[in-house]
Amino acid sequence: MHEKKIVLTGDRPTGKLHIGHYVGSLKQRVDLQRTTDQYILIADMQALTDNIHNPEKVKAHVIEVLMDYYSVGIDFEVSNIFIQSLIPEIAELAVIYLNLVTVNRLKRNPTIKTEIAQKGFGEAVTAGFLMYPVHQAADITIVRANLVPVGSDQIPMIEQTNEIIEKFTAIYGPLFERVEPLVPSRGNRLPGIDGQAKMGKSLSNAIYLSDSADSVHKKVMNMYTDPNHLHVADPGTVEGNTVFAYLDLFDPNANELANLKEQYQKGGLGDVTIKKRLSEILNSFLEPIRLKRAEIEHEKSWLMEHVLQSTKNVRIRAQETMELVKKCLHLLY
Amino acid sequence: MHEKKIVLTGDRPTGKLHIGHYVGSLKQRVDLQRTTDQYILIADMQALTDNIHNPEKVKAHVIEVLMDYYSVGIDFEVSNIFIQSLIPEIAELAVIYLNLVTVNRLKRNPTIKTEIAQKGFGEAVTAGFLMYPVHQAADITIVRANLVPVGSDQIPMIEQTNEIIEKFTAIYGPLFERVEPLVPSRGNRLPGIDGQAKMGKSLSNAIYLSDSADSVHKKVMNMYTDPNHLHVADPGTVEGNTVFAYLDLFDPNANELANLKEQYQKGGLGDVTIKKRLSEILNSFLEPIRLKRAEIEHEKSWLMEHVLQSTKNVRIRAQETMELVKKCLHLLY
Repeated sequence: MHEKKIVLTGDRPTGKLHIGHYVGSLKQRVDLQRTTDQYILIADMQALTDNIHNPEKVKAHVIEVLMDYYSVGIDFEVSNIFIQSLIPEIAELAVIYLNLVTVNRLKRNPTIKTEIAQKGFGEAVTAGFLMYPVHQAADITIVRANLVPVGSDQIPMIEQTNEIIEKFTAIYGPLFERVEPLVPSRGNRLPGIDGQAKMGKSLSNAIYLSDSADSVHKKVMNMYTDPNHLHVADPGTVEGNTVFAYLDLFDPNANELANLKEQYQKGGLGDVTIKKRLSEILNSFLEPIRLKRAEIEHEKSWLMEHVLQSTKNVRIRAQETMELVKKCLHLLY
Repeated sequence: MHEKKIVLTGDRPTGKLHIGHYVGSLKQRVDLQRTTDQYILIADMQALTDNIHNPEKVKAHVIEVLMDYYSVGIDFEVSNIFIQSLIPEIAELAVIYLNLVTVNRLKRNPTIKTEIAQKGFGEAVTAGFLMYPVHQAADITIVRANLVPVGSDQIPMIEQTNEIIEKFTAIYGPLFERVEPLVPSRGNRLPGIDGQAKMGKSLSNAIYLSDSADSVHKKVMNMYTDPNHLHVADPGTVEGNTVFAYLDLFDPNANELANLKEQYQKGGLGDVTIKKRLSEILNSFLEPIRLKRAEIEHEKSWLMEHVLQSTKNVRIRAQETMELVKKCLHLLY
């Protein structure tokens, strides 16, 4: 017998989702929802760790993210979408896990170290931010997930979760399975339209799933290419050229793309031509997504009600998990 | 109009309570329950922070502590006794508070620094232990308490809570009152029977509320006095003499005690005489407590059921608090 994997994935509701999210995770979720038991977390509590002054922003983006999910084909009847703050058992489990990890270990977490530097927290890092990998371990184990899709930079988070599980098992006995990271085998990270390595929700360099055709066209026409490719006749570089990076992932015609690259490198192919091609390709990719979004635009409350109901179902599972945890910890009364 | 103060107090269920607890806090609770709204927390989750390998110990002491409460006259109908782990909202609020305090601030907490040194945690201090003042801030504010009885060494904990409240207020608006520490005005700390400064649940130097008359007698007869007072005729020292420290708090006859001290200091009063006096005084103090304990000994399940019911009532208040907190944080769906 081969049981279905239990997947935990999700997003912090801090911005609208973009095509980088689609390539990096949303597409995968649409596939995984057919073959696994998939749980999708709207991590509003975790979003607050670095948005304590902007709780309105977090709240406002919950419905945006849900509409993004719907529009790309995440099936609200199949995937278990749930809102973190409505499941207090996650906080309960996180508090228990805090006893199983040292402060020094959290400080050594490479992902956290990088983020503390990027966000400029320095010595003022809050306890909540330092602890968020522990909170994630609770997110994952509260639904007893055993497969977690992550980018390669997030692997230390899964290691942290597995360390907590090992420690828990060593003291209280086996309850949780080790968690397997699901790391995409091919490059699935889109650069920003400005050529920055990462397309970011809050970096103003993203093409959003909800962008209009016109907006996409403008963004593509302003895209970063090869700064030395000044005239059509000049030879151009394909590596590090944002337009080609996007075409690599979205162009349905591999042969034509190969020819275009060859021509671009030799000289004689202008940026405008390849940008127009990309703009058309992206807009035909986004068109059905826009249609699905338009379909649900006036049914936002249905979407939210649906998620509140599935959160209730997930909470039942979370409560079962906590019963098991509390049994291990002699906390049943 | 003068509203009743809301008091939060409690114990970690890690051992039976002793006469040091009586003098330091239980007596006060018996008084406070008539004049305030008193909440008494059985801090089982917090007890786990340094008992991760001994959850059975924590569980076993819950009923012991409840019997101690009952025996000294805490009224289960009047005081709101509740079990921490049965109120997940406390963990929820603690997780929110973690965002309002820096890791460095927690490390500077004098009480925590002392405890980390005492317990020999060093670099291996767990996140759970470092965070426990934040957890306490959640314990206090979840019932919206404004008065917290503490020993003078615990004042930094109240300062930490008030800092969190101030930060919360500054960002999200006024919801919680400042918390006032209730520090006893007179010396209320009993030394251990071995002369150690502190009588400790786990230091084997305590006279427990549940000790038999015989056991109390033996403990008193072995008490640490003045190590230079070898013969009855020798002059003895009263300061630092454990027997007199106890008599100061328990002897009902102040004049007789003053005479005895004078005689002891001059010489001619033996340790056996003052120990017998103390043994009798302690046993007549403990006798009604023992009787109340015997009364409830076979009704432990009644006691526990009662507390489970009052925990449910406290949880309703906790849920109201979390509704208010979540409204501030835009987390209502």
